[in-house]
Amino acid sequence: MDKLSSLTRFKAACPFLGRTKTTTLRTLCTSSSTRYPSLSLLTERATKCPVMGPALNVRSKEIAAGYASVAGKADVDKIHKEQGVVPPPGATIEMCPHASAARAAARMAEDLAAAAKAKEKASVPKHAKDESAAAAAAGCPFHQKAAAAAVAKPGAKPKAAAPGAFNYEAFYVNELDKKHNDASYRYFNNINRLAAKFPVAHTADVKDEVEVWCANDYLGMGNNPVVLETMHRALDKYGHGAGGTRNIAGNGAMHLGLEQELAALHRKPAALVFSSCYVANDATLSTLGTKLPGCVFFSDTMNHASMIQGMRHSPAKRVIFKHNDLEDLESKLKQYPKETPKVIAFESVYSMCGSIGPIKEICDLAEQYGALTFLDEVHAVGLYGPRGAGVAEHLDYEAHKAAGESPDAIPGSVMDRVDIITGTLGKAYGAVGGYIAGSDDFVDMIRSYAPGFIFTTSLPPATVAGARASVAYQKAYVGDRQLKQVNVREVKRRFAELDIPVVPGPSHIVPVLVGDAALAKAASDKLLSEHNIYVQSINYPTVARGEERLRITVTPRHTAEQMDRLVRAVDKIFTELKINRLQDWKALGGRAGVGLPRSSDHVEPIWTDEQLGLIDGTTPKTLKNGEKAVVDPKAVAVARNRFNTLLGRIDEGPAARHATGLAELKMKTGVGAPRAAEEVQIPAAPLTVAASA
Amino acid sequence: MDKLSSLTRFKAACPFLGRTKTTTLRTLCTSSSTRYPSLSLLTERATKCPVMGPALNVRSKEIAAGYASVAGKADVDKIHKEQGVVPPPGATIEMCPHASAARAAARMAEDLAAAAKAKEKASVPKHAKDESAAAAAAGCPFHQKAAAAAVAKPGAKPKAAAPGAFNYEAFYVNELDKKHNDASYRYFNNINRLAAKFPVAHTADVKDEVEVWCANDYLGMGNNPVVLETMHRALDKYGHGAGGTRNIAGNGAMHLGLEQELAALHRKPAALVFSSCYVANDATLSTLGTKLPGCVFFSDTMNHASMIQGMRHSPAKRVIFKHNDLEDLESKLKQYPKETPKVIAFESVYSMCGSIGPIKEICDLAEQYGALTFLDEVHAVGLYGPRGAGVAEHLDYEAHKAAGESPDAIPGSVMDRVDIITGTLGKAYGAVGGYIAGSDDFVDMIRSYAPGFIFTTSLPPATVAGARASVAYQKAYVGDRQLKQVNVREVKRRFAELDIPVVPGPSHIVPVLVGDAALAKAASDKLLSEHNIYVQSINYPTVARGEERLRITVTPRHTAEQMDRLVRAVDKIFTELKINRLQDWKALGGRAGVGLPRSSDHVEPIWTDEQLGLIDGTTPKTLKNGEKAVVDPKAVAVARNRFNTLLGRIDEGPAARHATGLAELKMKTGVGAPRAAEEVQIPAAPLTVAASA
Repeated sequence: MDKLSSLTRFKAACPFLGRTKTTTLRTLCTSSSTRYPSLSLLTERATKCPVMGPALNVRSKEIAAGYASVAGKADVDKIHKEQGVVPPPGATIEMCPHASAARAAARMAEDLAAAAKAKEKASVPKHAKDESAAAAAAGCPFHQKAAAAAVAKPGAKPKAAAPGAFNYEAFYVNELDKKHNDASYRYFNNINRLAAKFPVAHTADVKDEVEVWCANDYLGMGNNPVVLETMHRALDKYGHGAGGTRNIAGNGAMHLGLEQELAALHRKPAALVFSSCYVANDATLSTLGTKLPGCVFFSDTMNHASMIQGMRHSPAKRVIFKHNDLEDLESKLKQYPKETPKVIAFESVYSMCGSIGPIKEICDLAEQYGALTFLDEVHAVGLYGPRGAGVAEHLDYEAHKAAGESPDAIPGSVMDRVDIITGTLGKAYGAVGGYIAGSDDFVDMIRSYAPGFIFTTSLPPATVAGARASVAYQKAYVGDRQLKQVNVREVKRRFAELDIPVVPGPSHIVPVLVGDAALAKAASDKLLSEHNIYVQSINYPTVARGEERLRITVTPRHTAEQMDRLVRAVDKIFTELKINRLQDWKALGGRAGVGLPRSSDHVEPIWTDEQLGLIDGTTPKTLKNGEKAVVDPKAVAVARNRFNTLLGRIDEGPAARHATGLAELKMKTGVGAPRAAEEVQIPAAPLTVAASA
Repeated sequence: MDKLSSLTRFKAACPFLGRTKTTTLRTLCTSSSTRYPSLSLLTERATKCPVMGPALNVRSKEIAAGYASVAGKADVDKIHKEQGVVPPPGATIEMCPHASAARAAARMAEDLAAAAKAKEKASVPKHAKDESAAAAAAGCPFHQKAAAAAVAKPGAKPKAAAPGAFNYEAFYVNELDKKHNDASYRYFNNINRLAAKFPVAHTADVKDEVEVWCANDYLGMGNNPVVLETMHRALDKYGHGAGGTRNIAGNGAMHLGLEQELAALHRKPAALVFSSCYVANDATLSTLGTKLPGCVFFSDTMNHASMIQGMRHSPAKRVIFKHNDLEDLESKLKQYPKETPKVIAFESVYSMCGSIGPIKEICDLAEQYGALTFLDEVHAVGLYGPRGAGVAEHLDYEAHKAAGESPDAIPGSVMDRVDIITGTLGKAYGAVGGYIAGSDDFVDMIRSYAPGFIFTTSLPPATVAGARASVAYQKAYVGDRQLKQVNVREVKRRFAELDIPVVPGPSHIVPVLVGDAALAKAASDKLLSEHNIYVQSINYPTVARGEERLRITVTPRHTAEQMDRLVRAVDKIFTELKINRLQDWKALGGRAGVGLPRSSDHVEPIWTDEQLGLIDGTTPKTLKNGEKAVVDPKAVAVARNRFNTLLGRIDEGPAARHATGLAELKMKTGVGAPRAAEEVQIPAAPLTVAASA
């Protein structure tokens, strides 16, 4: 459960909570009291509350009797003692192994306050709207929150452990304390991205809007008009859920069409769609590792959790090689006989540092040592290559551009040499779901054996239709990919000017190094509360300790003004929080690739000036405040054509009411689109009949 | 890849394929040649084809040289010999370990024909529309299919194995042959359920419509107007994908609202939504098994694959107890000390046989032996209980009915005693996704530690909004649940009259026993091709060998005429295929609970006459041909109110164009809805302000 969502729910009820911003409350929660360093400021305030102070004390006694591992309890006792509250019997500092951890105490205060008040339900006002109770609670931070909790969640009282039995609830609390203690506990922000205002979202308060700089809807395809139009039409025709597994009533033409689209995208014979790419990676690697006799995995040390889980979920041996280190990989490959089945599992774009895997060279090694290549292109599909097929396609840019829509493999190309490609529909394609692409028999084998594929309800027809429209659109229009990279270059350039440290890399990822968990969180919180800019901080275990960062994702839809605001805000916060700049890291010998002595700070981006259209001047222009984003009418027509058979032609039937009209497109392509409205006639009816679908 | 979809794509091109129904082709594929028992009828016909015969022969040689495990090759050679074709050198029956398996040969013919023709690309007509080629190919079953394959899939040629390296492609083929050999290879039907014609779907041909009798959209909520209205509105406001994981930009008010809705449904403090219930079960059980020190799982032998995988994905010991056998469970529980952490994992409704778990009694044992209870209510949520919370709720029907919308636990009720409930949004709720519900700290622990939750893109806002509308609607309207059970009773009664064996059970599942894999498949195929009725056959490994069945799902939306057609068609096919009737099973001593000597054939349904409204006459009436389904306006209002804050009131703003209007509701409630239009005023605006959302 999300603590902050509870807070939000109760803000309306409690005078203190109502007056205080969520982000301020969180800061109180995560800042240590100066007098009692093991407690948060929020807990300190709570102990002073006429209702919550005694409640904390009562709860402390119960806890001390049954469960010794309560962080910060001693400090709570200390405050209560000063306040004249009788300390709980038997509560000593020795009972608190985590006493040094401030955040655990803050959490204890939050959780236990609610639980304690739930017990005292009869003695607190029954309804938050009770006028006299509200008056009595004025100024009290926890009073009404607890009262509301008591009303809303009487079931919140955990079951007491049976005598002699394992105490499950205490165990959960202990596991959570570990997260609080190492600052890896996650507070979810409430972010609601608005289709009509991309990249703006509202928070828990629909009137409180922020600019989003960390979503993985990398191109804004989640609100592309042809995607939404297709989904509205599919929803009207096929309803919501698929109604079954792929084998039982849940396999339709939309699913088959998407798989055909994806196979053609990667120029592979077959593709298979899963609930997510987490499931695709997990199911595929675990099935390979279980089926291939004596299989050995070779796994890049920076691989995503889904791949690691997949390998772990098989009995196969897992050999880990250093990130992008071909020498290390080869030295490990050669320790096994050539005939031993091997799978080299790696990524194209590593999402947290922005590095790119040496795909071609790994294919060389795979061939030499008889290994399969398993390439995760999750952070690359839609974003690299002339058709958006990913980095493997990008490496043979001109050949793939020339081959156009053909689904045929280009023999000897990097994409052809990779055996297995996995991708997602949930990032650059702005949808949800994941997939694998490869040979017919490989895909059929996974289809036939992977429980994670077989025994799950398939994705809704409207979802896969929206995903297919997105893939088809991006296949036909390179402008979003170009403009994204142009904007990424601009943000990186601005940061470099201000000496703000960005982990160097050739991709679209902009990882701003902070280097400390608390600082990264504080920076993220300040950006949100003071600048209305949302960038989630990335802490351990997602990145190594000491390499905490703000991971910024720049889209083709961010305006020049938004970029300017972002850069200024980050600069201000670096100053205010005294976060290390690039020169500081240089002085310290570097970290996470930043400020290393061997001047690796500049890495050539994988998109060349020519590919970006900077040489011939065809690059779309960065949007300015008030301008509409580009929607390419030719690509819209291509995407629409995929659905003629199933959804009817866009200008016919009742579904036509969902059509993104001619006028609308023109309006949206009016600005910054040199090749749009002028050059291409927007067809009222589709250009050609779809080959399939 | 789906072989049938390929077939469908090529039907337009080839005169033979075009003339032949897909189901007939499949029958040819799965029926053995009488002359050459290891081959299918389809393969036999292919060897006679002027183009495919030599192609098969050429391919046989390549295969014989490189890969010894080709089923049925010897028989192909035999036919070719009779036809005067030179047999491939070195091809002997000894090289075919699977030579006895007919289906592998059929598959070989299918796959290799395409591959061989791809090699001969230059020698076959380049385009299927080539007039003279089409004329030449008249009457040839594979000619044009192969030609089309050659055009569409030149990448289909699998990579040759490097010398000395493991042959991955041959390995895949071998694994697939195993599936063909034991008849467990799955051919996906192409089924597209039409929202406006529920329960009718179109097949690969949009004009070919069938009645669906096996979908898990148990109540037709996938096309409920308030669900679709909500989704259209959410899609317009928030676009498609969530844009990130729950921790990074993908956590919004829609997600939190759905979790609040589900927690309240089960009267638990918290709930957490996953990509699917497969993932929910897998992630939750594997996390518990990994984290709880020395954990032991106790798992019902009929548990779903997702639970089995979850337990396997942890180091915890797994003890399997006999299905629903309390004595066996207790004898196993008592072998472990009380303080050992234990998890009893079981289901409420077992989906393949329709049995119901003894939830209360398992809670008793759990308490006695200090175990957690983990209850999968996937096939029960939406379908049991006054509010649709499942069987655990149903067991205290009146108490939960009286408690109404309150989210408070009812102390001592069965639902309160179950520690962990998991459910799906993809079946009775007609959406997609899964969830867990339980104590705050339990849910928070899973939220904080389960990789399958943490590292995956969250479900789209429109998807979770649709799911929430569905849950809210079903909470407020019991009529769909009642009518479903009434229709289930009627279908079971009709089958009993005709001596058609149904596995007895107290739930909504209607498993018609066939008892043989090939017969079950043939019955399913005949229903589809001759009666336009789609019921997927359920074979091993989903059910035990010898217990193959047709699993029929009856909804409140099936009409009396459709039920009549179903029963007559099944009866006819039982006669035609000489499938055992109930009396036959009795004579044989019974199977799968059918026809057992101890007359267990009748099991009291869990929904009583009173709960169904049969006593007071409030049961909705079974629909008749042409009647509109009931949509309850009060429940519509309840569902709408959940979204006032986020999507605006339904009669305001641009989203109003998606509103399911007053007129539409009246039209749809005109028939069989005694308590609808007459008793309840349909509000143009919502009745009350939502408590949350």
